[in-house]
Amino acid sequence: MKLRFVRLLPAMLLLWLAAAVAWAQTDPLPSWNDGPAKQAILNFVHVTTDQANPNYVPPEDRFATFDQDGTTWVEHPMYTQMVFAFERVVELAPQHPEWKTTEPFKSVIAGDQAAMAKFTDHDLITIFVATHTGMPVEAFRAIAKAWLAQAKDPRWQRPYTELVYQPMLEVMRYLRANGYRTYIVTGGGQDFVRVYATPVYGIEREQVIGSAVATEFTYNQQGQGILTRPPKLLLDNNFSGKPEDIHLFIGRHPKAAFGNSTGDQQMLEYTQAGGGASLEMLVLHDDAKREYAYGPAQGLPATKVGTFTQALYDEAKARGWTVISMKNDWKHIFAFEQ
Amino acid sequence: MKLRFVRLLPAMLLLWLAAAVAWAQTDPLPSWNDGPAKQAILNFVHVTTDQANPNYVPPEDRFATFDQDGTTWVEHPMYTQMVFAFERVVELAPQHPEWKTTEPFKSVIAGDQAAMAKFTDHDLITIFVATHTGMPVEAFRAIAKAWLAQAKDPRWQRPYTELVYQPMLEVMRYLRANGYRTYIVTGGGQDFVRVYATPVYGIEREQVIGSAVATEFTYNQQGQGILTRPPKLLLDNNFSGKPEDIHLFIGRHPKAAFGNSTGDQQMLEYTQAGGGASLEMLVLHDDAKREYAYGPAQGLPATKVGTFTQALYDEAKARGWTVISMKNDWKHIFAFEQ
Repeated sequence: MKLRFVRLLPAMLLLWLAAAVAWAQTDPLPSWNDGPAKQAILNFVHVTTDQANPNYVPPEDRFATFDQDGTTWVEHPMYTQMVFAFERVVELAPQHPEWKTTEPFKSVIAGDQAAMAKFTDHDLITIFVATHTGMPVEAFRAIAKAWLAQAKDPRWQRPYTELVYQPMLEVMRYLRANGYRTYIVTGGGQDFVRVYATPVYGIEREQVIGSAVATEFTYNQQGQGILTRPPKLLLDNNFSGKPEDIHLFIGRHPKAAFGNSTGDQQMLEYTQAGGGASLEMLVLHDDAKREYAYGPAQGLPATKVGTFTQALYDEAKARGWTVISMKNDWKHIFAFEQ
Repeated sequence: MKLRFVRLLPAMLLLWLAAAVAWAQTDPLPSWNDGPAKQAILNFVHVTTDQANPNYVPPEDRFATFDQDGTTWVEHPMYTQMVFAFERVVELAPQHPEWKTTEPFKSVIAGDQAAMAKFTDHDLITIFVATHTGMPVEAFRAIAKAWLAQAKDPRWQRPYTELVYQPMLEVMRYLRANGYRTYIVTGGGQDFVRVYATPVYGIEREQVIGSAVATEFTYNQQGQGILTRPPKLLLDNNFSGKPEDIHLFIGRHPKAAFGNSTGDQQMLEYTQAGGGASLEMLVLHDDAKREYAYGPAQGLPATKVGTFTQALYDEAKARGWTVISMKNDWKHIFAFEQ
């Protein structure tokens, strides 16, 4: 008997190993530490996909919306698209000699950080129009794509598209595996985000909702129909614009929504107002070491569009939303750290 | 030997029957007569889904867009949504005693067909605003749904939602079975069409692009986020608006587009401008007996928004688009005829 047991030991070890591997494979959120945030996600998926559960959500209603800047990738100290706009000004400067003596271009070309930090909304719109409009949609796409291929974040010295939060990618994949359609719903430019949404998030262009210029249909010299980008804003996809555009694109309340600032507040409120089980999450940037710390009680400057105010934090608590602590809830932040 | 053959006969007949059934099942377009239109559809799907074909289209690019009125369902003598608006005026009249003496409401309430036929764009907008705006999006949905459930087309005495063209439903199903995402791209109201798009077309709300009012996020008395419909047009999804909104919602050129009027011209042009194999089809209403005859050379009055002009017919021929003759190409028009 004893001998037989010893002989079986290697086989038993193998079985145990296989079981451990299987368990690891079934954890859909390996970059999350155990805790209330991870549990909220697992519980939400469980109750909304179990047909016997009173909170079951039929597949046609399964939508999850994600803000981008500060929610799915780094937004500090400056939105990536803003960096793109500023660098584009420098690149275009030789074709616009007058910019050297005209604000806001002058400060951008001179790299005057102090002046740039004080830019008004009007200054930023001027820069946005000069760098984002006046070309066919395909030309803008090519410009943005070329910039993204070579631009690097100064702190990590990596492409901006690598500064996505691995835990959020896991949530997206987990939701999709459970029949949810995942949408980016960003204050950033729709056509900018569409350039990299598929390789970075696994999200196709038709599931990217963002701020958008009104395109204009016209004809090229060959008589073919083309679309250009006139300097006219059609959708300002921030604050109330988020639920409004979600209705325009989706026509339903999302069942899950993820944000990190007052720019996402109305999206989360609208998600919850849909009734039944829903998931509302806010990313709190409280990890100065691995990323940045700003927002409630951090005393750091707010980002340009919306920020995580104390009032939003209080609303989250009052409405039962989940606040994600990057420091405590995320085992890894970036894929390249692992 | 002879006896054996006779004994086998029933089995052979059964086999032959099975083969015939199998053949019928493999015809994806049974309501289409053989001819260039049916062949164009079959050929398009064949070349764009065969990986060995130079015109192969990867799945992420497979989009097909369908105009609605006159393309997927009857638009003559009046758009269904216009009938809804007029009947809604009559229904709301008791709450608006001033309408009895105020145009354009007065003529609608009186059922004055001659006056209604002469309504200006301004009159129609006044009626649209009075019947389609000023309520939460859910309330509008409920109103439209209730109307559609009881309204009947005067000629066929059937719900409007049964007046869809069976051949077009077959094309939609065939394209979807081959990896195409099918979108309604209508000049009609997006939220009106969304009410019935799923049961009628098998198309979910997020794949309905239409003319749209700008919704407004606000709070109800319980502090929940809701969306209302202010009287402000955000998208006029006709003519150039179609390719512009296709870019907004999809971000790609469609590979196939179906229309029936100048309101669809730019959508078809934009589809073809995407390059590679594409399919552009226009429905010609030339069947006065089974449906209606109007458009080129029919000498019938144009519909309000866009019509099938001789110039559009000539452009179709010049650009190699396919004109569908309802009379010759469609074996059945409606499901209820079969």
